[in-house]
Amino acid sequence: MTVDVTEAFRVVDLAGVLCNGALGATIARQRRFDFVGFTVLGVVSGLAGGVLRDVMLQVGQPVALTDPAYLITAMIGVLAAQLIRMEGRRWRWPMIGADALALGAWAATGTIKAQIVGLGWLPSLFLGVVTAVGGGMVRDICIGQVPAVLGGNTLYATAAATASAAILLTPVQVRSTWGMGLGIAIGGGLSLIARWRQW
Amino acid sequence: MTVDVTEAFRVVDLAGVLCNGALGATIARQRRFDFVGFTVLGVVSGLAGGVLRDVMLQVGQPVALTDPAYLITAMIGVLAAQLIRMEGRRWRWPMIGADALALGAWAATGTIKAQIVGLGWLPSLFLGVVTAVGGGMVRDICIGQVPAVLGGNTLYATAAATASAAILLTPVQVRSTWGMGLGIAIGGGLSLIARWRQW
Amino acid sequence: MTVDVTEAFRVVDLAGVLCNGALGATIARQRRFDFVGFTVLGVVSGLAGGVLRDVMLQVGQPVALTDPAYLITAMIGVLAAQLIRMEGRRWRWPMIGADALALGAWAATGTIKAQIVGLGWLPSLFLGVVTAVGGGMVRDICIGQVPAVLGGNTLYATAAATASAAILLTPVQVRSTWGMGLGIAIGGGLSLIARWRQW
Repeated sequence: MTVDVTEAFRVVDLAGVLCNGALGATIARQRRFDFVGFTVLGVVSGLAGGVLRDVMLQVGQPVALTDPAYLITAMIGVLAAQLIRMEGRRWRWPMIGADALALGAWAATGTIKAQIVGLGWLPSLFLGVVTAVGGGMVRDICIGQVPAVLGGNTLYATAAATASAAILLTPVQVRSTWGMGLGIAIGGGLSLIARWRQW
Repeated sequence: MTVDVTEAFRVVDLAGVLCNGALGATIARQRRFDFVGFTVLGVVSGLAGGVLRDVMLQVGQPVALTDPAYLITAMIGVLAAQLIRMEGRRWRWPMIGADALALGAWAATGTIKAQIVGLGWLPSLFLGVVTAVGGGMVRDICIGQVPAVLGGNTLYATAAATASAAILLTPVQVRSTWGMGLGIAIGGGLSLIARWRQW
Repeated sequence: MTVDVTEAFRVVDLAGVLCNGALGATIARQRRFDFVGFTVLGVVSGLAGGVLRDVMLQVGQPVALTDPAYLITAMIGVLAAQLIRMEGRRWRWPMIGADALALGAWAATGTIKAQIVGLGWLPSLFLGVVTAVGGGMVRDICIGQVPAVLGGNTLYATAAATASAAILLTPVQVRSTWGMGLGIAIGGGLSLIARWRQW
């Protein structure tokens, strides 16, 4: 059972990496970067949040380095965005959905990892938000934009914080199972609703 | 006595967090960010310097995460700046004073922490400066500005370096007591004089 | 022999620091920063890549802090650029050469350090690239520019990745000797050719 939870955790974390890799590469395309620019921006978007989290947690090398699946998954996201033009009307909602899923997934993994290390609830919530919005912040800064969490779309941070809080309110025994599911549902759901209702 | 020194150290560090939390939130207000933007920018301003320091020192998780008082203090700073418009003539000098105090406090804690870990004097001085100016640098970069330490107000770095140097010249036995006080006085004093005389 | 390899490794790493310190300071001059701005930007350019590498590797404090030679070397680079105007036609190729050498040197040290810690080939290649382009990326972000690896000169990343790959293909026994030399030659050579042929 422990193995299953760890594996579910990993799949959720990697789903976020895939979505953000594709998202970063799509943004790179809009800026007319070349293939290297695509790759760098996609990898940064996909991995920076988790690297920030792991570097702050100081429990060994970031999982993005020790588990090769992370870099490979980010690159699959980049390649997919390279092969398929994920733009226009048809792609608008799938991309928003992927973004929302990644946000929920990362808020969940960040919060739970912080709790495992023994941090208090406020730092755990903080780390959930950093994991969820960190990759996008670094990506925005790299392309010379004020990060969306500050100005344009502050609902990212709110959705991530709400997801983290929901996980922290879940009983410890089921936090890595039901808690994680709940966090993803709340974080992802909130950001979807916000985009749909144009909050 | 050891407890007292540790506590004094913590109070000084937290004073810097409070001032910079308020400062970051005030800058966020001037940019017309919303409440989330206020909070993110205030927390970044208040904690990024210390997190950079602790991540480089590699002595466990950043104190900003293990001691909940840090996040709480940063948020009190943010809330204060949210409730009170810290702008206009009346607030000009109090804000400059808070900024100067934070600079001196952080130069002191950065330098002393580096010395405790056993780093040489030049890296200790470097870490004092990083702690003092790091939060402001990250904040400036987040809002798309060239950090003030590079272009606009390079006296920040000079004042921080002078404070660090003063601490390093203090005898080891009194470094965490008189040294810290001296560092705060010199770092804060220098940046106050510089603002006053418009250096 | 082990000592010699370690020392060669250090000299190569420091050569990169010297070149990038001078490069950062020269860019600071073009932006009309003052002496403090010169120093900060030079030190950031010279040390940020290695600090990023060491912070991710989590094997103790960054070598940029534990070995005082790093900060001193970065500052010698800054001072050299301060005393000598490294601009105009005469300096164009020497500067490009220094830049190419630093890129090859850092790709080599990043890759080999990652291998020593036991990371897989893809994360090692990634860390080689991060070490090689990280300092320049942070420098570009500090001065409000989109990092050259994303838009302007993506050959940096390609040359660094090729150098890393060459080292990883070298037999383990000679990786820290011939491998490092090969990496520097390929990384430096590729970026020189690219600048010359205006790729």
